[in-house]
Amino acid sequence: MTDTQKKTVLVIGAGSVGAIAALNLEVGGFASVTVALRSNYNAVKEQGYTIESCDHGFLRDFRPSVVRNSIPDIVIENLPPYDYIVLCTKSTPDVGPTSLDLVAPALPKDNTHTTLVLLQNGLNIEKPFLESHPQTVVLSGVSFIGSAEPSPGHIVQNEPDRLLIGVFPHPHNTIETASARAQEFVTVYSAGGKTDCKYSPAVLHDRWRKLVYNACLNPICAITGVDSGRIRLADGGLDGLVRPAMREIVAAAKAVTNIELEKDVVEKVIDTDPMENWGKPSMQQDIEKGNYIEFEDLLGEPLREGKKAGVPMPTLEVLYQLARAIQWRTKEAKGLVQLPSQ
Amino acid sequence: MTDTQKKTVLVIGAGSVGAIAALNLEVGGFASVTVALRSNYNAVKEQGYTIESCDHGFLRDFRPSVVRNSIPDIVIENLPPYDYIVLCTKSTPDVGPTSLDLVAPALPKDNTHTTLVLLQNGLNIEKPFLESHPQTVVLSGVSFIGSAEPSPGHIVQNEPDRLLIGVFPHPHNTIETASARAQEFVTVYSAGGKTDCKYSPAVLHDRWRKLVYNACLNPICAITGVDSGRIRLADGGLDGLVRPAMREIVAAAKAVTNIELEKDVVEKVIDTDPMENWGKPSMQQDIEKGNYIEFEDLLGEPLREGKKAGVPMPTLEVLYQLARAIQWRTKEAKGLVQLPSQ
Repeated sequence: MTDTQKKTVLVIGAGSVGAIAALNLEVGGFASVTVALRSNYNAVKEQGYTIESCDHGFLRDFRPSVVRNSIPDIVIENLPPYDYIVLCTKSTPDVGPTSLDLVAPALPKDNTHTTLVLLQNGLNIEKPFLESHPQTVVLSGVSFIGSAEPSPGHIVQNEPDRLLIGVFPHPHNTIETASARAQEFVTVYSAGGKTDCKYSPAVLHDRWRKLVYNACLNPICAITGVDSGRIRLADGGLDGLVRPAMREIVAAAKAVTNIELEKDVVEKVIDTDPMENWGKPSMQQDIEKGNYIEFEDLLGEPLREGKKAGVPMPTLEVLYQLARAIQWRTKEAKGLVQLPSQ
Repeated sequence: MTDTQKKTVLVIGAGSVGAIAALNLEVGGFASVTVALRSNYNAVKEQGYTIESCDHGFLRDFRPSVVRNSIPDIVIENLPPYDYIVLCTKSTPDVGPTSLDLVAPALPKDNTHTTLVLLQNGLNIEKPFLESHPQTVVLSGVSFIGSAEPSPGHIVQNEPDRLLIGVFPHPHNTIETASARAQEFVTVYSAGGKTDCKYSPAVLHDRWRKLVYNACLNPICAITGVDSGRIRLADGGLDGLVRPAMREIVAAAKAVTNIELEKDVVEKVIDTDPMENWGKPSMQQDIEKGNYIEFEDLLGEPLREGKKAGVPMPTLEVLYQLARAIQWRTKEAKGLVQLPSQ
């Protein structure tokens, strides 16, 4: 395939998840990838990515086709629209910028050409885009990869890349158009043969299923400082915290979307991370690094949806309020909070 | 008063609270104090206490009559029984030793002479003593002092010593005997004139009243790492966490003991610590120092009592379970937990 036949893909935020996405897209030969980086830009610009991957082996100096330190402004820079924009940043709308703000320069309001792929966690993340870009196809990416970036540009992927691509319910585009785009993306993403990327017709199911982990284990480990292996041993960890929280998500999934998650989903999700890895979920890692946590999309949205549907969610309510206070602490540490003068 | 007329008082655990108690007892001239120390023994043995006190001024090298690094075993050491034993240690029965174990060598089972004063926080702390020492008078001490020990033997007291002494409900001793002992203790403790120590007939009221702070603000600050001043500013701090938790304690006090706390108790307790001090409640200090937290007596007991009485306590339930997991983390750090071998 010549370069001009390749799909152009802009990957925004290529850390532990996005770098592997960029890699899969490039190695398949059907895509030319531009990555827009922030915190790891200097490292990647100078030496490329160093990748240790259970799917791809050891790679030194992996460089996507274009490495940038800003979001392309396609009007000002007079660039053709990308075929795909894959958004892989963490989503912290409570402390800004929102995903919408971030993508805006590369995605005109009247866009129909570019397909947006939200490779992000949580609920209702597509809503702002559907409102502001009603003619854009927005796809859902739910990733089950195990990957980390211990230092800028150094990616360690220790669990296979498994990715579910689907179509967010959408008022304007017909499901046929959108699902054709989704299937095409799966083909382009999978072409290298080193990933398990599938089209999924059940986006809401996939997202609620992942929330059983992300709205529960993730904040519980972040708040207690007890990792996903140890929480299974800690006093009160499973019966006092994890199981009650997960049961609330299962009930909310049913009440909000009529989705019946599988009967043993709670126990299965508890066992997701191999015990002996003593793995730290993303929010716990973020707290330890002094970063913001994605608690609004991962915990706040399912809580609000569940409560609106009449589901009692006392455990998630308290976890949510604690996460808010902890986020406030981080905001203060980063200088975003002004204490009253004394 | 000659030394032989003085009351003999054993103060167990003389840190920020106990050292000021020992000081008040000594300066009044009616008591001869033995302190039994652990972590600050070497410092106090060598240079006495250094005390900066809003009640007493600046004192260098304050030494109680006897400074020991063990609990006196009055049988083995052939000592006369103390008139009073004042227990000022933190209470962490879940990680042992229990208060009962601690006091045992100085308090024979058939004791009638020695009066035990529990200058400790929380609920039901007298129960083990009433069972094992049915003839011992057990008094309640509820302290509202503001005091810290930034380094061993160095006491900084920045809020006045206010102490309520009363009688725990008791099946054997008549209330008259016990309350006479309580009044005597108040006299001995107050004789120096630098403290506000009063007899209180309403022990359960005093204890539940203090739980409005200790079962709520204390663990919330410990878990979030947001201090008692900042929690009033933090997103979700008051309306999401502090007020709901405090209302649960107010409801439990009513249901369990028929005590009506004052109508504005929640707002009053929120304002207990001067905002601009950015004060860290004891559990938050303990977490930061890597110490165990007193969550069972301060949070677990009122939660269990309230639930038994049918009060819904969803906020305290989650705070309690999180505190358990955090305590487990400390246990692991101190080598008390054995992880399964891999």
